[in-house]
Amino acid sequence: MAKRHIIIGGSDAGISAALRIKEISPEDQVQMFLADAYPNFSICGIPFYFSREVSDWKTLAHRTADDIQKQGIDIFPNHFVSHIDPDQKEIQANGHTYAYDELLIGTGAKSIKPPLPGMDEEGVFTLRWIGEMLEIDQFITQKQVKKALIVGGGYIGIEMADSLRVRGLEVDLVEFQSTILQTLDEGFGKAAQQKLEEQGVKVFTGTAVEKIAPSESGLFVSGSHGFQSTCQLVLVVVGARPNSSLAMEAGVQVNARQTIKTDFQMRTNISSIYAAGDCVETYHSLLKQHVYLPLGTTAHKQGRIAGSNMAGQKATFKGAIGSQVLKIFNMVAGRTGIHDRDAAKYHLPSFTSESEFWDHKVYYPGANKLYIRLTGNPESGKLLGAQIIGSTKSEVAKRIDILATAIQNEYAVDQLNDLDLTYTPPLSSPWDPVQMAAQEWLKNVGK
Amino acid sequence: MAKRHIIIGGSDAGISAALRIKEISPEDQVQMFLADAYPNFSICGIPFYFSREVSDWKTLAHRTADDIQKQGIDIFPNHFVSHIDPDQKEIQANGHTYAYDELLIGTGAKSIKPPLPGMDEEGVFTLRWIGEMLEIDQFITQKQVKKALIVGGGYIGIEMADSLRVRGLEVDLVEFQSTILQTLDEGFGKAAQQKLEEQGVKVFTGTAVEKIAPSESGLFVSGSHGFQSTCQLVLVVVGARPNSSLAMEAGVQVNARQTIKTDFQMRTNISSIYAAGDCVETYHSLLKQHVYLPLGTTAHKQGRIAGSNMAGQKATFKGAIGSQVLKIFNMVAGRTGIHDRDAAKYHLPSFTSESEFWDHKVYYPGANKLYIRLTGNPESGKLLGAQIIGSTKSEVAKRIDILATAIQNEYAVDQLNDLDLTYTPPLSSPWDPVQMAAQEWLKNVGK
Repeated sequence: MAKRHIIIGGSDAGISAALRIKEISPEDQVQMFLADAYPNFSICGIPFYFSREVSDWKTLAHRTADDIQKQGIDIFPNHFVSHIDPDQKEIQANGHTYAYDELLIGTGAKSIKPPLPGMDEEGVFTLRWIGEMLEIDQFITQKQVKKALIVGGGYIGIEMADSLRVRGLEVDLVEFQSTILQTLDEGFGKAAQQKLEEQGVKVFTGTAVEKIAPSESGLFVSGSHGFQSTCQLVLVVVGARPNSSLAMEAGVQVNARQTIKTDFQMRTNISSIYAAGDCVETYHSLLKQHVYLPLGTTAHKQGRIAGSNMAGQKATFKGAIGSQVLKIFNMVAGRTGIHDRDAAKYHLPSFTSESEFWDHKVYYPGANKLYIRLTGNPESGKLLGAQIIGSTKSEVAKRIDILATAIQNEYAVDQLNDLDLTYTPPLSSPWDPVQMAAQEWLKNVGK
Repeated sequence: MAKRHIIIGGSDAGISAALRIKEISPEDQVQMFLADAYPNFSICGIPFYFSREVSDWKTLAHRTADDIQKQGIDIFPNHFVSHIDPDQKEIQANGHTYAYDELLIGTGAKSIKPPLPGMDEEGVFTLRWIGEMLEIDQFITQKQVKKALIVGGGYIGIEMADSLRVRGLEVDLVEFQSTILQTLDEGFGKAAQQKLEEQGVKVFTGTAVEKIAPSESGLFVSGSHGFQSTCQLVLVVVGARPNSSLAMEAGVQVNARQTIKTDFQMRTNISSIYAAGDCVETYHSLLKQHVYLPLGTTAHKQGRIAGSNMAGQKATFKGAIGSQVLKIFNMVAGRTGIHDRDAAKYHLPSFTSESEFWDHKVYYPGANKLYIRLTGNPESGKLLGAQIIGSTKSEVAKRIDILATAIQNEYAVDQLNDLDLTYTPPLSSPWDPVQMAAQEWLKNVGK
C-alpha cells in the first residue's frame, strides 16, 4: 500500500532519503518541505562561487527542482515547518496541516553565533546556506568590499580565505587555537597556514576576536594580544550546532548537545520519525560511540539509509570515521580516523609517525612530495588514523580513501602492506606511499 | 646466530628480500647475485627512457649499488648462477662456489619468443631488461630508426607505442586478439586504441604477424589478412614466462607452466630455498587459487615476505588480485580483480555494469569523465572486479585502489556505499564515483 512520506529539509539528507524512497517504492507519496528556496544545493560549493571559479550560482544545485519533481517528489519551497504532531502524524507549515505515515527530520545544522559585541553590525555574517551566500555576495559587490576578516580557521574559514583571495580581496584569518585546521596535527595546520600566507592571506593564530565595531572605513575588529584590523566584511565561521528545536518540541530524544538520537536505521525514539544529516548524532565506527560529525558525505549516507527503511527495506548505517579533504590553492589536505589528541581524549594508546614520499617515481617528471602522518595503536598495532598533505596532482584524496577503507575494515597498520594496489611510474611506486608510511610507522614502534 | 643468505636475482623480489633480511637481522650475511649489471632497476620505467621523459637511464634505479651496499648487502653483478646444490647448500657462479644457509630464487621472467620466421634478424628485439633497453636505444639512434612495429598490445606494447611516438617515430602496433589491453573489457580496449590512434599510432587488431624479413629499407613484416608493413625496428612484446630452469634443475617443484610452487611463506618444497617474484606462481585471493601474475608490486611483496621468513620472523603472503594501471598519453586505465571473461573461465556467475561520472562536481572547472565498469556476482552480491578509464587528472589509479582494498576485504558491491570517503567539490562528489557505480550495478541487478 502506498505510504505518505514527509521530509523536512531539502539538503543532502532530505533529498537522499526522498530519492531512495522513490527508487524503492515509486508509488509512495513524498513531500519535501524546505525553509528556503534552494532544494538540493551543494553548500560545499559555496566558496567556489565567491571566487568565481563557479560563475553561475545556480549550477551549485546537485539537481534542479524540475529534476527532483520529475522523480515524483513534491517540493514545498519557502515552507517553514513550525510544528510536528507525532500522535496525529501531522506537521504544520505556513499555516497548513500535512499528514504523513513516516517523517524524516533533516533540518541540518545552524551556524554557531558567538556572543561577540558587534555580531549584529552591518557587514557581519555567518555562512552556511545559499541564501546567506547570495546576501554576502551582494554585499561584497555593492559595498565594493576591499578587505574581509574571517573568524575561524576550520574548513569553511580556510576555503573562504582561499576563495576571497582569488576574488582579489585582502583577507585576514583569525583563529583562537594555536594552529588552524585543528582536525589535522599541528605541523600540517602550520603547512596550511603557510600555503595561505604564500597567497597573501594574513593568518593570526592563538587570537580571540573580542569586539566588532562600526568604523569610518567599515568595521573595526579588535581582539586578544592587541589584535586590530579594519575591514568591510566579517565572516564568522566558528562551527555549527544541530538544528533540532522542532524535533525536541515534538518529543524526539536528543543528547546533551541537542543532537538527535537515532538507531542504526536512522529511526528516532518515535517509531514513525526518522532523522538524518547534520541534526543527528553520528556513530563513529572506530570510536564505537556517537559523536557530532556534520558532513555532507555522511548526510547523504544517512539519508539514503533512512529512505530505504522508510520504503520498507531494512538498511543499516555502518558509521563514519571522519574522512575529510580540503583544497587550499594548489595544496590538498586530507584526514581520516583519529589523531593523537582524539586518542588521548578517548583513552586509546596512540603513536603517530610522519614521513615524506614522492607521489610517483621521481625519475618521471612532475613528482611532488606527499607528507603522510599515520596514527596507530602501538599496543594492538591497529591503524587509527591518517593525515596527508600534498599537491592537487598527487591523488591525496583517494589515498586517504584507501586508508579510510582500511580503517573501516579494522586493519592493523601492518596489513596495509598486503594491499594489492596499482602501480605505474608516473602515478605511484611499487609500494604506494601509504604502504611506505605503514613501513615507517612499524619501524618506529619496533615491529 | 648470524646466517648466510644468498639471493639469486637483483630485481624487485631479490632486493626486497635482501633489504628486509638486513632490517630484521643486521648481523646476517646477504649476498646478491645478478646475471646483469643493473641491480634494483625499475624495469617498469623503461618506456619513459625511450620517450626521453627520463633523460638519464641511470635514474631508473630504485637505489644505486652504493646505496644497497651501504645496507650491508654484497652485490655480485654479472655473476650468472649456473647451479644450485640443495644438499650441500651451495651455488656455483662464474666458476666459484658460495655457501648459504638460506637461498632465495628471484630469477624473474623471460620474454616469450614466438617461433616467427625472422625473429633473429637484426632490428628484431624482445624487451624486458635494462640491457635490452640500452641495446635497442642504441640501435634506434645509430640506425636512425624512423618507424617501429610493435607486436603485442598488452601493457608493455601500449606503453612502448606511446613512448616511441613521443620520441617522434612512426609506430605500428599489431595485436592478435580482437582488442588491445585484454586485461580490460572490449570497450575499454577500444578506448585505449582510440587514444593511441589520436596520437598517430596505427593499431592493427585481430592480426597475426607471420613473418619478418630483411628489406631494403630495414624490415618487412607480413601477417594475416594481407597485413604488410615496412619498418626498421620490430619489438616483440607478447608476454613473459617464468625463468625457472635453474630452480627445476635443483629439484624445486614447479607447476605445469614451469612456475615455481611456494607456500604462503614463499618457501619452496626444499625447506632452505625460497622463491619470489615473476618466477613463482602467485596466490589470487579472490579466485582462491594460484595463477601466473608477474607484476612488480607483487614481486616486492613476495620478496619482503620471503625476507621476513628468512630472517626468522613468520610472515604470510596474503595474495594478489591483479591490480594494474597504465598511462596512455593523458589517459589512465586501471583494473583490479576479475572481469566477466575470467569469471566465466572459473565458473563464477558475474554481471558487469558500465557507467560514467564526472571525476568531481561538474560546476567546478576542469571536470573530466570517468568510465567505470564494476563486475559483481549477481547471486551473492560480491564485488569481483573493477575497471576505470579516465584522465591523468582524475585519480583513476587510487580509485581502483579503493576498490582493490574492498575486494581484498571480500566486499559485497552494496558495502561500497558504507565507505566513508573524502569529498570536496574540486576532487569528488558526496558519493564518490566508485560508490555511484556501485549504486548503478545494484539497480541493474535489481537490488
